[in-house]
Formats: sequence, structure tokens, C-alpha cells
Amino acid sequence: MSRERTLAELASITGGTVVGDGDIIIHRVAPIDEATAGEITFLTNPRYAKYLDRCQASAVIVGQGGAAAQAGSAPVAFLEVADPYIAFAKILQLFSSPVALSQSRSSQSTLDPTSVLADGVTIFPYAYIGARSKVGSRSALYPGVFVGADVEIGADCVLHPNVVVRDGCRVGNRVILHAGVVIGSDGFGYAGHGDGRVKIPQIGIVVVEDDVEIGANTTVDRATLGQTVIRRGAKIDNLVQIAHNVTIGEHSVVAAQAGIAGSTKVGKHVTIAGQVGIVNHIEIGDGAVIGPQSGIPKSVPPGVILSGGIAAAPHHEWLKVMTLLPQLPKLWASVRSLERQISQLLNK
Amino acid sequence: MSRERTLAELASITGGTVVGDGDIIIHRVAPIDEATAGEITFLTNPRYAKYLDRCQASAVIVGQGGAAAQAGSAPVAFLEVADPYIAFAKILQLFSSPVALSQSRSSQSTLDPTSVLADGVTIFPYAYIGARSKVGSRSALYPGVFVGADVEIGADCVLHPNVVVRDGCRVGNRVILHAGVVIGSDGFGYAGHGDGRVKIPQIGIVVVEDDVEIGANTTVDRATLGQTVIRRGAKIDNLVQIAHNVTIGEHSVVAAQAGIAGSTKVGKHVTIAGQVGIVNHIEIGDGAVIGPQSGIPKSVPPGVILSGGIAAAPHHEWLKVMTLLPQLPKLWASVRSLERQISQLLNK
Amino acid sequence: MSRERTLAELASITGGTVVGDGDIIIHRVAPIDEATAGEITFLTNPRYAKYLDRCQASAVIVGQGGAAAQAGSAPVAFLEVADPYIAFAKILQLFSSPVALSQSRSSQSTLDPTSVLADGVTIFPYAYIGARSKVGSRSALYPGVFVGADVEIGADCVLHPNVVVRDGCRVGNRVILHAGVVIGSDGFGYAGHGDGRVKIPQIGIVVVEDDVEIGANTTVDRATLGQTVIRRGAKIDNLVQIAHNVTIGEHSVVAAQAGIAGSTKVGKHVTIAGQVGIVNHIEIGDGAVIGPQSGIPKSVPPGVILSGGIAAAPHHEWLKVMTLLPQLPKLWASVRSLERQISQLLNK
Repeated sequence: MSRERTLAELASITGGTVVGDGDIIIHRVAPIDEATAGEITFLTNPRYAKYLDRCQASAVIVGQGGAAAQAGSAPVAFLEVADPYIAFAKILQLFSSPVALSQSRSSQSTLDPTSVLADGVTIFPYAYIGARSKVGSRSALYPGVFVGADVEIGADCVLHPNVVVRDGCRVGNRVILHAGVVIGSDGFGYAGHGDGRVKIPQIGIVVVEDDVEIGANTTVDRATLGQTVIRRGAKIDNLVQIAHNVTIGEHSVVAAQAGIAGSTKVGKHVTIAGQVGIVNHIEIGDGAVIGPQSGIPKSVPPGVILSGGIAAAPHHEWLKVMTLLPQLPKLWASVRSLERQISQLLNK
Repeated sequence: MSRERTLAELASITGGTVVGDGDIIIHRVAPIDEATAGEITFLTNPRYAKYLDRCQASAVIVGQGGAAAQAGSAPVAFLEVADPYIAFAKILQLFSSPVALSQSRSSQSTLDPTSVLADGVTIFPYAYIGARSKVGSRSALYPGVFVGADVEIGADCVLHPNVVVRDGCRVGNRVILHAGVVIGSDGFGYAGHGDGRVKIPQIGIVVVEDDVEIGANTTVDRATLGQTVIRRGAKIDNLVQIAHNVTIGEHSVVAAQAGIAGSTKVGKHVTIAGQVGIVNHIEIGDGAVIGPQSGIPKSVPPGVILSGGIAAAPHHEWLKVMTLLPQLPKLWASVRSLERQISQLLNK
Repeated sequence: MSRERTLAELASITGGTVVGDGDIIIHRVAPIDEATAGEITFLTNPRYAKYLDRCQASAVIVGQGGAAAQAGSAPVAFLEVADPYIAFAKILQLFSSPVALSQSRSSQSTLDPTSVLADGVTIFPYAYIGARSKVGSRSALYPGVFVGADVEIGADCVLHPNVVVRDGCRVGNRVILHAGVVIGSDGFGYAGHGDGRVKIPQIGIVVVEDDVEIGANTTVDRATLGQTVIRRGAKIDNLVQIAHNVTIGEHSVVAAQAGIAGSTKVGKHVTIAGQVGIVNHIEIGDGAVIGPQSGIPKSVPPGVILSGGIAAAPHHEWLKVMTLLPQLPKLWASVRSLERQISQLLNK
């Protein structure tokens, strides 16, 4: 947060245009209702336009033509860009200080003699790396991280505290695993029933490709045979369950508490909202969008937008609806019967 | 569990009245169907009244007039109180031995030289405290706890094993964080799509106020800018997701596996049941009650009681309902058509 | 993965019959669409029969009569068994190398002097065992495992990294606790409201019986008084919530992200699918089957099959359904009114 830039420099970095004084000095990003002098803010959600009048920021990031639309509403400069949200993200990255890492290995960590660490790796206390595992350049393993045997972690990864990556799993470059993530736990597989139930060994692995980010306490099970795969650029939120042999396609996004059952293939650029449940052995087509709390019992074609969540209603009204819902077949039959009777009456 | 009290003493502590022998010695609390001599039990749920006849307890906590209502049903003494459940909790606290803590710092922990620990703090092995962080009097950090840099933890807190509190977050006094809780993981924020997707740095913090308790493996994301806030006295159960910039109001209660999306403000004294999902950027009014598995797509006024969960039905009947549900618009149209036809017939 | 067996030996081990050459050497198990020479595969799901034609495996596990049914489709041998999935599991176990454990205690672990470890126990670095706790023969505690005071862990257990078992809890033999599991966190219990809210001490324990497996980051709360119990042979998936005083019966199966509220008793051989929510203080009868995302608001008789999940629909159609659903009582009234009017017309 220690750097300073002129508004003109920020325009250059974001491919935008200054409307106002390009020499204004900006040193921080802040929300529209909190920003003060020297700070830049952004207007992406029209609901927040009402704050512009009282806005104390030195500049506001807006879309093309946004300055004219807001002209006169506030004595500030504008930075017009194609996508204000991307510009906001880039400027925020510019002003955010990355965490300084020691690039050294704590003497209180445990590194198997056969493990291989590249240059610039940071190993915090109480991290553990098993036999033959490799960690790429500049990656960081925070306290309590467990890396099993025969694991590969790429370069520039961050494994936050208490992340677990079990034997044989592979993690690409620039991957962020948030605190408590478990990669490579056994898939939930048994054959038979009762006392005769047999655990199916889960001898496959998990492959997490480049530029993936996985949220806190999310679990990704290893494959029974073969691989569970999180493809390049996929973003997964907190407390998500990814079962064995699932594939999450490139650049797909999975929101918090969603669950994807075994062997299901999720395509590229798919959006899965919070608390969605997807059954096993199906395919979700590229670009599909699935709304919150939806249940997905069968394959979904590419590009469709599905919903299944129910909006909560006042409790007493909902009780009536819930009493009638199971009687929908009876209601349907009543209507069909009425149609027949009326038809008879009309024919008379 | 080692102390003894007379029933009269328990009456004094709970503001209640003895019906029976106040000199009876009580040394423990037990469930109504398991209690034996020397134990006190409680009757708060009428479903358990049937156990009174065979109850072996020396005394029973009941509501006002409860002794008369149960007279003759069992040869026990009664402790009549305004709220039997609160009296039960207080008496249980009285007989529960708090865990004895060493109030010392394990040599197998890692405390940054710039961190500041108050008197009586207990640091277990493999706990880690980063630069400039502070821990208040008598707080305990169990094994595997990670406290980042610039964190403040108040007095009399318990951070159970493997809790993570990341950089800059603030935790008040008398806060209990159960095992595996993650405070301050990055919010789930990106701009753009596909290969052009940009991570939005999450540079805000989490503030957990006094007397909050957070359940095992729950995740609370740090704000993009500003603060995610869990206000005084809020109680949050296991496996809950609290997204970036959310506020949970004073004394609100959130049950297990609920999820609250980004920037949503939950008011005071709100009750959110298990597996509820709440969308982003809305407000839940003070005192609202939201039933289990409900989806909340828009703001909720204060004091309302909402439900949205569906009771499961026999599978084959439910299949029929599920087939008809998407045809509800067609059914509605049929009914409207019938109404027109009848109206015509009646007009003849 | 280093052993070799003839197909005839595999038939003997699984109680099956060879159709083809019993002398074929098998050294591995692989999926039907990936298997090559020297590997055995399996056909349990008819959807995968199409792969038989191009199958490169040396043998295929099929059901009784399965060889004849597939005759001519592929130049491979068959192993006919009563239950191909169980045979698959057993052969996979045969070829899977168990992880080699050191059977030693890391000097970087913390074992209370009063704790008792049986022969062959493996303690990894950064594991912690509290006062008076016992660990049975050949059990393994991976890095970051926390075992509190007065805990009993049986023989041949595996506690994966960062598992937490709090004070007083008991774990049977051959139990597998996956990474991040929390056993014995406080139940979610309070009396009163607002500033007067009182925490109810959770002084009971959790009992996990023999042959239980619990998935990554699942939480099992300790009882208020008495015990939360996971009975023999139960299998619980990832991110499941088991509240205080719950009982899960013998050999029952609970899929990912399900939640079971306080004091509910789940019977034997029950199947609970993913994301199911079950309220508190009810009973689920033996052998009941509960479909994905179902809500269970009241007790369930033995043996019934319940569903409650809603299949997602195209977003715009679903919006219409959602608008009409709360008006179901009005629709019902309209139909009743129509019935009366028609009845009058017919009586004329």
C-alpha cells in the first residue's frame, strides 16, 4: 500500500482514459462510501451511484461514457475503462504489497532427504514433505502443511496453513490452496453391504493444473483409479466437495458449499453457484450456468442456464404450500376431470 | 465434576425455589433417563415427562408451577425456576471443571520476537504467531494454531487445534474458535473471464467481536476492502461459510452448513437454521428467523419468519410431484381456461 | 502394485469362475477404457459395455453369465463372479501396496508422559497426545494430529494429517479418520437470548466404534451429556456435520455435506445421500434411504425410500414455476370453486 501513481499512469496501466486531472496522485483503493483524498474508488454496481455526490475520493473508475453520465455529481476525476471491475482488480494488485517470504526452510520443518526443493522456496515451521516430493521455485508452505510422498508442487504456489496434499498428487504452477484444503483424501467407495462391505482402495491421484485457486477447508478426493482433475484456471470457493474421478474444466468457477459427486465431468467456463449438488457420472456442458442450491440429477447441455433453488416465503404461507405440494398429482387429476365434465356440458 | 452443592444453594444461584428438601446434596447433572442419586436433571421438553415416574435423580429442574404439575409422579425434589434451560446451563457450568491450562509457552511453538503475549497465555506445541501480533491475558492457543502477522487476539480466548487466523484479523475477548476454523482466508473475488480472469486482491480483514463462538471447520473470509464482521455475542455452528464483507449482527445465531454470500448484512438477534443459503449484497433484518435449507434471494424485513425447505416424501410419490412441478404454469393456464368456459356456461 | 497373479488365482480369491485362459498373468487393475495387457478391468455399469469392443485388458470381471452376454465382443478372458464390484474391490486391495509406516515415534512429536502407546504405533512429527490417552497397536498418527486428554484410540487406526480428537473421546479399531476431521468439538448449545444467552457446557463425549471411516473435514460434535455415537461399520463422507448426541447406526452410510442435527438417532443400514438435512430429536428407521438434498423434518419409519430434492430446470421456466408455487393454495381454491360451479350446472 506504499506506492503512489498519477491517475494518468493508472490510465496507461489499465488501458483507460482520464476525464479530469491526470496529475492527481493516487496511493490507495477504497470503497465509494469510505474513500478519501488520495484514494481511487470504483462504480460497477448502479446501486452505489447514490454515493457519488458525497464521495471524497480523488478519482472514480467508471465504464466508457461513465464520466459524462455522472458529470456534476461530484468534484472528482474519472478513469474511464472498458471493464471497471478488471481495472479495479489491476489497480488493487498494483497497490497491494505481496507478503514478504523468507525464502528459507525452517529448521522446525520436516523435509524427507529424498525431497527436492527448487530455489526460493519458503518452508514454515511444522510443514512436512514426504519422500521423493518436489516443490517448485518460490512456492511457500505455511505452518502445518502436509505434503505426502511422490507429490509434485509447481512454482509460485502458496499452500496456506494446514493444507494437506496426500501421496502422489500433482499441483501445477501459481496454484493457491487456502487454509485447511485437503487434496487427495480417499474417495468414498465401498462394495457390498453391512458386515460384507469392502473398502475399495482409492489408488488414483488428484491433478490440480496451473492457476487454480481452492478455498478454505475444501476437499478434493483422489480417484479410485486414474485422476481427479481440476483444470487450468478453475476457481473453487470454500467448503466445496469434489468427489473421486471428477473433472472440473478450464476456467470453471465453483462457489462455496457446492458438491460434485463421483466421476462427473464439468466442462470449461462453467459457473456453479453456492450449495449446488451434482450427482455422479454425468456431464455438465461447457459454459453452463447453474443457480444456487440447484440439484442436478442428469447431464446438462453446453451453454444452458439452470435454476432449481426455491425462494423462502413467510413461514405460515409456506406451510400451506408444503401441505399442497405433495397433492399436486391429485390437483392435476381434479383439473383433468373438470375439463372432461365441461367438455360434456359444452357438447350438450 | 468434583464439587457438591445443596439443592438450596442451587436455588440461590439460579434464582429458583425448592419444592422438597433443600438439604439434598447434588454433585452432578444428568439426563432424565440416566440420572441417579446425587444428580439433578431437568424437564424442558414435555416429550420427556414420561421418564419422571422412573426417574432416579435426587432433584428435577422445572418451570414455575412445574412441581405441582408433576406432583406424585416421582419421589424427588424440584427446583422451580423461570427458565429451566438457563438454570440447567448455569448448574452444568457450576459442576463442569474447566480445562486446566499450563499458562506457559511451549518451547516447540514459534513466536515471532515482535509478537506480544499478555499474562497467563498458554501456547501449546506447534502453534505459530507472526510478527507484531498480540494475544490477550489467559488466552490459549492449542497445537497447530496459526496466527499470522498483525493479528490481535483478546483475553480469555480459546483457539482450538489447527485454527487459522490470517494476517491483520482481530479477535475480541472470550472468543471460542473451534478446531479447524479459518479466519481471514481470501474472499472469492475475480474480475473478467477465462484466460483474462484477474484475482481481486483481498486486502481487508475479519473482525470477530467479544463473546463470539465459531464452530469446527467454519470459514470466514477476509474483506476485499474494509472488514468482514462477526458482532458481539454471535454464535456460529460448524462448517458455515461466511463470505467477504459480510456482517453478522449482535447475538445472531447461524446453524451448521449455512452459507452467507458476499457483502450481505445480517442484523441483530437473527436466527439462521442449518443449510440455509443467503445471496450476496442483501440485508437480513433484526430478529428475522430463517428455517432450515431455505434460500434467501432478496432482503428480509426485521422480525419475519421465513421458510423454504421442502419435507421429503416417499420416493415414488415425489417423482410424480417432480414431474408435475415444472408444468405448474400449464396447470394454471388450464384452470384459467376452465374458469372462462364455466363463466360462459353460467352466462347462458 | 508390484504383485502378479494368474487369473485362476484371482478366481480362487474372489470365489469366481474363469471363462478363458486361467494362466493369464495379471498385475494391475485399470478402468475399461484405459486398461492394457496384463491388467484386469471390470464391467458393473452397462453404460460402459460399449468400451468392451476396443478393450485392451487381459481380463474383465463380470457378473454370472456376463461372459456369454459379451461373447465375441472382445478377445479377452472373463472372470465371472456373484458381485463384480466386490470382486473388483478385493482384487484392487490385493494389488494395492499399503503405505509403509515407520512404526516409530518422531522426536518432533509431543507425547504426554502419562499417555500409553501400544506396539507398532507410528507417530509422525507435530502430532500431539495428551494426558492419560491410549493408542492401540499399529495405529498411525500423521503430522498435525491432535489427541486430547483421556482419549482412547484402538488398534490399526489411521488418523490422517491434522485430525483432531478432543478430550475424553473414544475411537475403536480399524477406524480411518481422513485429514481435517474434528471429533469432539463442542455441541451447539445455548440457553436464553441476547445478552442473557448462556453457553451450555458440552461435557459428554464422542464414541466412534470399530471399522468406521470418516471423510475429510467432517465434524462430529461431543454430547452435551452422554455420548454422540458412530456405530460399527458406519461410513461417513467429507464435510458432513454430526451434531451433539446424534447416533449413527451400524453400517449406515452418510454422503458428503449431509447434516444431522442434535439428538437424532439414525438406525442401522441407513443410506443418507449428499447434502441431506435432518432436524433434531427424531429417529430414522433401520434401512431407510434418503435421496440427495432432502430435508427430513420428522421421524422416518424403517425401510422407506424418501426424496425431496428438486431437479433444476431452465432458468426462465423455473422463474415462472417459482412465481406460481407460493400461489398453490389460491390455485387449489380456484379448482374447488370450479368443482362446485360445475356440480351446480350438472344438477340443473
